[in-house]
Amino acid sequence: MDRIINFDHLSATQPLSEVVESMMPFMRDNYGNPSSMHMLGQQAKAALDNAREQVATLINADPEEIIFTASGSESNNFALKGVAFGNRKKGDHIIVSAIEHFSVLQAAKSLEKLGYQVTQIPVDKDGLVDPDDVKKAITDKTILISIMHANHEIGTIEPIEAIGKIAQEKEVLFHTDAVATVGIIPVDVKKLNVDFLSFAAPTFYGPKGAAGLYIRKRARINPLIDGGTQEGGRRAGTENMMSIVGMGMAAEIAANEMDKRIAHVQALRDIMIKTIEEKIDHVYLHGNRTQRLPNNVNFGFEFIEGESILLFLGMQNIIASSGSACTSKALKASHVLLAIGVSHAIANGTILFTLGIDNSVDDVNLLAEKLPPIVERLRAMSPLYKK
Amino acid sequence: MDRIINFDHLSATQPLSEVVESMMPFMRDNYGNPSSMHMLGQQAKAALDNAREQVATLINADPEEIIFTASGSESNNFALKGVAFGNRKKGDHIIVSAIEHFSVLQAAKSLEKLGYQVTQIPVDKDGLVDPDDVKKAITDKTILISIMHANHEIGTIEPIEAIGKIAQEKEVLFHTDAVATVGIIPVDVKKLNVDFLSFAAPTFYGPKGAAGLYIRKRARINPLIDGGTQEGGRRAGTENMMSIVGMGMAAEIAANEMDKRIAHVQALRDIMIKTIEEKIDHVYLHGNRTQRLPNNVNFGFEFIEGESILLFLGMQNIIASSGSACTSKALKASHVLLAIGVSHAIANGTILFTLGIDNSVDDVNLLAEKLPPIVERLRAMSPLYKK
Repeated sequence: MDRIINFDHLSATQPLSEVVESMMPFMRDNYGNPSSMHMLGQQAKAALDNAREQVATLINADPEEIIFTASGSESNNFALKGVAFGNRKKGDHIIVSAIEHFSVLQAAKSLEKLGYQVTQIPVDKDGLVDPDDVKKAITDKTILISIMHANHEIGTIEPIEAIGKIAQEKEVLFHTDAVATVGIIPVDVKKLNVDFLSFAAPTFYGPKGAAGLYIRKRARINPLIDGGTQEGGRRAGTENMMSIVGMGMAAEIAANEMDKRIAHVQALRDIMIKTIEEKIDHVYLHGNRTQRLPNNVNFGFEFIEGESILLFLGMQNIIASSGSACTSKALKASHVLLAIGVSHAIANGTILFTLGIDNSVDDVNLLAEKLPPIVERLRAMSPLYKK
Repeated sequence: MDRIINFDHLSATQPLSEVVESMMPFMRDNYGNPSSMHMLGQQAKAALDNAREQVATLINADPEEIIFTASGSESNNFALKGVAFGNRKKGDHIIVSAIEHFSVLQAAKSLEKLGYQVTQIPVDKDGLVDPDDVKKAITDKTILISIMHANHEIGTIEPIEAIGKIAQEKEVLFHTDAVATVGIIPVDVKKLNVDFLSFAAPTFYGPKGAAGLYIRKRARINPLIDGGTQEGGRRAGTENMMSIVGMGMAAEIAANEMDKRIAHVQALRDIMIKTIEEKIDHVYLHGNRTQRLPNNVNFGFEFIEGESILLFLGMQNIIASSGSACTSKALKASHVLLAIGVSHAIANGTILFTLGIDNSVDDVNLLAEKLPPIVERLRAMSPLYKK
């Protein structure tokens, strides 16, 4: 098979070889359960502790503030439902933004069905939340604010630090979904003023099945998964050692290489944006131009369908996506794009390119060569398009 | 290091080499997200479908009735909370047994705090649930019965088929935690008359991080993890491909080798029970002698502490456990033993041996040689013991 040029680093990244190597001993030989008191268990326990420290270092947390989960979606559900159920006596009001990941929005919807009140904060045309809007939405019944660190589709980075200060002043717990940022850009839980922060290994070249929730000391939250005493009694279930160890290694490498990686993907991002805007007309860059993830390029191509573009790119072994993999099967226009005021027509003509450390200038140049004729050809067939 | 003789197959089993081999391509090369529409994703999707079929075959379910989770604890929480929240309009009453796994009991406790009513059915001295007790506990508000297939500590196999018939007659949803049985003894969801059934790969020589919940077609349940459209919209989060593929392979092998494995461990079990009872006095076999898991041996040794026995066995490279790994850190007497009427003293002197396919007659003979002098020595030091 020809080499695949992958511009879809949102739905999956290839685990680094060092990550895979670190996992190998836990595939078969070190199969102990870290909760077991005997030697097999204690070997696993040491590896678990080490991974917890590696992850904590990446986000400037204490190791005991890291709870391992199996996915970013689990972390988000844990944060929303755990805080809602654990603070019911204090209040029943939750604030989220309109462009949160589906795992936050759907968890909020489930809580609404159980009698909680949910306020959805709108965003501006770039997808930015106004901290003042959050402030105004807080009532004496508000128990949680959940605003993402950066949007996974349009790449906009939210003013989390400012929202965190408001939350602290008002004594409301604050969760941020940082699945799109942890391991990609610097994330410091103390600087961000957050009580809870979700992250996931597949974002930063770690394995699937490993993710986590940062829980600030003394922040009140119930488990999502009740049972045994694993993870300090906060998340029951036998730990997925293999994936957790791999996430630890991926976190350590991400911390060490972050500056280099950012410089690399950001340069590619800027070339990609520039060439697409130069070579193709009627294109719209979604999201904020400066407050933007270094790996994110998201364009609406007027008059044509995103799925058709992907099909033709796929024939050239170029992979991108039409949005989040979590919702790609729903075949609906992205709720994120609709929330920033993009029309259904342009939302359906949108392609999301997420760059990774395995991409090169050659990859971007190839796209710059292949994409314009594809768009031109599709537009030529489109009844909507008149040159 | 000397060979470890592992009699703790409850907290972990060593994944089979065929299982590890099946997982290898998904460590790095096949890193696609099955929800992605492009080629990387579709490759993953095919492997996911295959694993679902392998698991479905093991328990005589249809593939679309299998929802993958990350642990048996997650599956149990999913069943209890998902049914409770999804059927709230119908009722608020849940029935469990007193010897369920902590993930069932604690989930039930969490639901109680949210206003649900929970009835705990007692068990007899062997740990058996009387189906008549379940029948009597059902009210017009009962929405769920959750009784485990077999108890993980004392090995007692419950009359699930009979309870399932009662549940069907009364039109109450029925969940069984089959984490201790799936892959160990034949499990047929249709024959058992269950609506939901939890299972986990680490029981049957599969990887950590893979487990599942069988959900009978049209049985009403809400997601525990809301979000994307994965798993038919019933469990959001990127699938842990590696572990799921490994579980599929482990399920296929378990189905093929089940008779052979049962014959093997049951023979060892019977030798072990016989020799311990012959060689050591004041010992009590917990659990039912005939309605018993083929891999389970659980003895109370009067006058001494289980932890001390484990320590001395460990010096001989023999591993066993004092109960469930999920609760070993709690250092409390097992709730299962207390529920069958075992005194605190004997509960604290209890050792759980779980046998596996890697154990041999030599292993059991070695234990028969090493254990009696250890018990004798500890009793000689015990102020409670008079010969």
